[in-house]
Amino acid sequence: MPKNLLEHINSPEELKKLSIGELQKLAIELRRFIIDIVASKEGHLGASLGVVELTIALHYVFDAPSDNLVWDVGHQAYGHKLLTGRREVFHTNRQKDGISGFPKREESVYDAFGVGHSSTAISAVLGMALAAQLKGEKDRQHIAVVGDASIASGMAFEGLNHAGVTDANMLVILNDNAIGIDPSVGALKDYLTSVKEGKNPRANNMIKSLHFDYYGPIDGHDLPRLIKELERLKQIKGPKFLHVITTKGKGLKQAEENQVKYHAPGKFNKETGELIKREESEFPSKFQDVFGLTLVELAEVNKKIVGITPAMPTGSSLKFMMDAFPDRALDVGIAEQHAVTLAAGMATEGLIPFCAIYSTFLQRAYDQVIHDVALQNLPVVFCLDRAGLVGEDGATHQGVYDIAYLNCIPNMVIATPLNELELRNLLYTAQLGIDYPLAIRYPRGKGYINYSWKLPFEKINIGSVSQIKKGNKFAFISVGTIGNNVIKAMALSNSEDWSHYHFSFVKPLNEKALHSICQQYEKIITIEDGTVKGGFGSVVSQFVTANYPGLSVQILGIKDEFIEHATVLEQQQACRIDIESIVEIINK
Amino acid sequence: MPKNLLEHINSPEELKKLSIGELQKLAIELRRFIIDIVASKEGHLGASLGVVELTIALHYVFDAPSDNLVWDVGHQAYGHKLLTGRREVFHTNRQKDGISGFPKREESVYDAFGVGHSSTAISAVLGMALAAQLKGEKDRQHIAVVGDASIASGMAFEGLNHAGVTDANMLVILNDNAIGIDPSVGALKDYLTSVKEGKNPRANNMIKSLHFDYYGPIDGHDLPRLIKELERLKQIKGPKFLHVITTKGKGLKQAEENQVKYHAPGKFNKETGELIKREESEFPSKFQDVFGLTLVELAEVNKKIVGITPAMPTGSSLKFMMDAFPDRALDVGIAEQHAVTLAAGMATEGLIPFCAIYSTFLQRAYDQVIHDVALQNLPVVFCLDRAGLVGEDGATHQGVYDIAYLNCIPNMVIATPLNELELRNLLYTAQLGIDYPLAIRYPRGKGYINYSWKLPFEKINIGSVSQIKKGNKFAFISVGTIGNNVIKAMALSNSEDWSHYHFSFVKPLNEKALHSICQQYEKIITIEDGTVKGGFGSVVSQFVTANYPGLSVQILGIKDEFIEHATVLEQQQACRIDIESIVEIINK
Repeated sequence: MPKNLLEHINSPEELKKLSIGELQKLAIELRRFIIDIVASKEGHLGASLGVVELTIALHYVFDAPSDNLVWDVGHQAYGHKLLTGRREVFHTNRQKDGISGFPKREESVYDAFGVGHSSTAISAVLGMALAAQLKGEKDRQHIAVVGDASIASGMAFEGLNHAGVTDANMLVILNDNAIGIDPSVGALKDYLTSVKEGKNPRANNMIKSLHFDYYGPIDGHDLPRLIKELERLKQIKGPKFLHVITTKGKGLKQAEENQVKYHAPGKFNKETGELIKREESEFPSKFQDVFGLTLVELAEVNKKIVGITPAMPTGSSLKFMMDAFPDRALDVGIAEQHAVTLAAGMATEGLIPFCAIYSTFLQRAYDQVIHDVALQNLPVVFCLDRAGLVGEDGATHQGVYDIAYLNCIPNMVIATPLNELELRNLLYTAQLGIDYPLAIRYPRGKGYINYSWKLPFEKINIGSVSQIKKGNKFAFISVGTIGNNVIKAMALSNSEDWSHYHFSFVKPLNEKALHSICQQYEKIITIEDGTVKGGFGSVVSQFVTANYPGLSVQILGIKDEFIEHATVLEQQQACRIDIESIVEIINK
Repeated sequence: MPKNLLEHINSPEELKKLSIGELQKLAIELRRFIIDIVASKEGHLGASLGVVELTIALHYVFDAPSDNLVWDVGHQAYGHKLLTGRREVFHTNRQKDGISGFPKREESVYDAFGVGHSSTAISAVLGMALAAQLKGEKDRQHIAVVGDASIASGMAFEGLNHAGVTDANMLVILNDNAIGIDPSVGALKDYLTSVKEGKNPRANNMIKSLHFDYYGPIDGHDLPRLIKELERLKQIKGPKFLHVITTKGKGLKQAEENQVKYHAPGKFNKETGELIKREESEFPSKFQDVFGLTLVELAEVNKKIVGITPAMPTGSSLKFMMDAFPDRALDVGIAEQHAVTLAAGMATEGLIPFCAIYSTFLQRAYDQVIHDVALQNLPVVFCLDRAGLVGEDGATHQGVYDIAYLNCIPNMVIATPLNELELRNLLYTAQLGIDYPLAIRYPRGKGYINYSWKLPFEKINIGSVSQIKKGNKFAFISVGTIGNNVIKAMALSNSEDWSHYHFSFVKPLNEKALHSICQQYEKIITIEDGTVKGGFGSVVSQFVTANYPGLSVQILGIKDEFIEHATVLEQQQACRIDIESIVEIINK
């Protein structure tokens, strides 16, 4: 047995030659490798640690890439990447020009489907299986590995409901660890738990009701058992379902014990597992904390406030409110469609729901925003977290479409705070009593104010516009936090030509302010961290061509391409909305 | 007993005073009233006929509007409207300034939630029930009536999954008639059928698995039984589920026997039930037939073509292909998210999926379009039926957002055919081998060509632009079928000043053609049957402000309001994109 097995595995072919004993040794090495790299390079940890044995078993039993293997959500796929030829580039994970943190078709033939958002795998794999059937390739296998938090999403149910009436050669593996990013919730989770614990007298019936052959539950860390079970299932035609019990973070004590924290823990000591705390000053605070703590502060006074999040209590910091007012703040699981219409229902009863949802995930509830909220003009407050460029999570998670997709919806009000203080005051304003839907978009992470944002509340006028800098010839108009880049660029360039205006709202457009700006300046540049197509810049363009033909408008924002993983700064540079690029534009 | 009971019922209060015998008489009258009006005024028939007894029983037992009653999809709510004070205005159903064909909060306090798209009721009602709980109003009841086709949608599952872990005082009534607009499909439907037929030994467990108190199935046309059951359930706290078996179209023989046709049958003889056929020439044909028949024609030659529709086989005419190639054309049920990602999965295997979906329903799969199709640049063809203004279905169903919400997505190609012939050739072009996602949008109903569209296929160049009329001073640019209004207006106005260009694609924008246009004319007017915000006009505006400041652009399209039910012509008039309005603009 060579000293290190992993370094000889460059494709699943080599793995297939190992004995069961060697595979078990490989599992230890794989786990060690993941821990070592993520400890220093950061990334998703717990999910991939939980499926080490499953990953090895799948590649041992099945024949990827001829057999299709799709990892739902994708952050469980590090082991898969390491076993399919990406070991030596794995240290570039989530970096610019490095490998993606998620499976990606462009990156490898072993990545059968790109995944980043959850619950897509069953549908994708069913499509592949039906296609193979049509092509007469009947022996190929099609496997979806789905977590228990993801399978509770409506989309996954739709996939199961269809698959059950086909004879598609597909295997759904439920990776049941009772947690997504936060602990799983919902009735299905309770049901699965009762099955696991042997408490359900009619166990398994639910999946069988959907015409799936159900097997399990089995221990997902028992490699020989997994291999045996998969070998057996490989011989069975039609839709099959294997319930596998795993422990998220398996093999690293702290990660097993603190699964939420170690989902994506940042840097940690690779030997002890201890998190490496960065020395941080209290300010600027994270937008998420400002949101979460301010909401608690408001909810203490205003009994109408309720909070809803689809599976992001920790990420969005709605957790603060869930702790303070457990009856009034809900995690509904990965169920964005439901979250939005639930909020609409609550709003009809006079409550003011604050729906904390990432910009990229609101895409999942687009119809509900139009049909259930905006059409009925209900006062639901969408707290659009992770709006704009998101950095290392990359193309799947960019929050750059929201201005475009919300701006075309009647009744919708879209607020774009400059900083955490304005976010706080917008939250305050929202609960004073609005009679329309309001989206407040703000980015991930640190704000911009080096003093406490815990100032007395101030109401913000809808449509508010502020002049940040006075100049003579040209006007920069920004929406949202990207305006801070403009502020810094103005300071660096020291030009007297340029004015800078901040529009706190994309919609309604403050036409009075825009008239005044158009009449004063020779040229306008707009900037946003949203798509140039259909964004704020396009609104200004429309206004100008209708009212001030002759005035030139330049639009800065996210170009019409998918922006891949990199740091936020690098992504800004690619779109020329970073400070330096703005300085260049100003000086030109 | 008065001769006619219905004419004395102006609110549920009066209904509560009737005896069971009188209620049964009322059911006959209600059914008659619905048949009589729909026979001459058109509208949805079968669904409301199926729930006459259920409607009476609900209003007899519960206390709307204090108790919340939400009718999923909404087209089952005619009886509800008639019993809640809208009998005398019911003849204005679906007409301009008349009542809506769907429940609508603005219209009546008895319409607790606006519904048009399916599967929203459980989430909405849960929101109401949780809100009532928070407000301490514990005796109020919250009821969702959901069809079996709608409950199979992912969103409904998300609602059930959440409701099951609450103690919300809600009742889900499954109106099981085994049909939506087309027959229901999927594993859940099979399961429900087995329960109905008493064949399932572990019956009811599936719903109970989600922690619901399950009751039924019971006969939904047995009024005394329904009342008794509802009275009993009213006393039980927490989430409850009642399975009711009904017959769609109940009480009109033809409607019972031909449930698809009599979903919304158009005019018919109110005594015999026979459809009143309009004398129709073969041409112009319906866009749907051109789509469906052309796809069959192409599929005969190109084996890679597959067709997918989420529950609209008849409406979209994918039915033609389902009949011709049952293995290659699928109705996946009300599962838009799944439909799109299924298509993506098929595309990864080299097939060319044609996904037939209404513009308004693609909103349900917006994230899947971005994350699963466009991001991976997969060749899925979205056949966006009922794009533009939809007429009598009204605000819930307008297909006017698609240009805006698709245009901001990288890789997406958006085709906007002028007529059915161009649609045909775009379908042909799509299957020649594209390596990007393509959306082709076209409206409901009749086309524009008075001769056969069955002409030899011609490939359409991506970005294609054609000049329809030559003029000297100004340019009209149209996208899509609204261009036919421009053609007619040009003919009527007889102006030599105006050119007319048709852009077959919103994206990619043919910049060369646009440069040429900008250089030739003093003014540009764009027109589209999509939102002015973020639509084609905004694209042209952006181009002009960047390249030709000084050129005036006027944008015609759907104003930033929800456009209510009316005829398409009336809706066009409201947006000033009808022929007469265009003539006025040209002559000005």
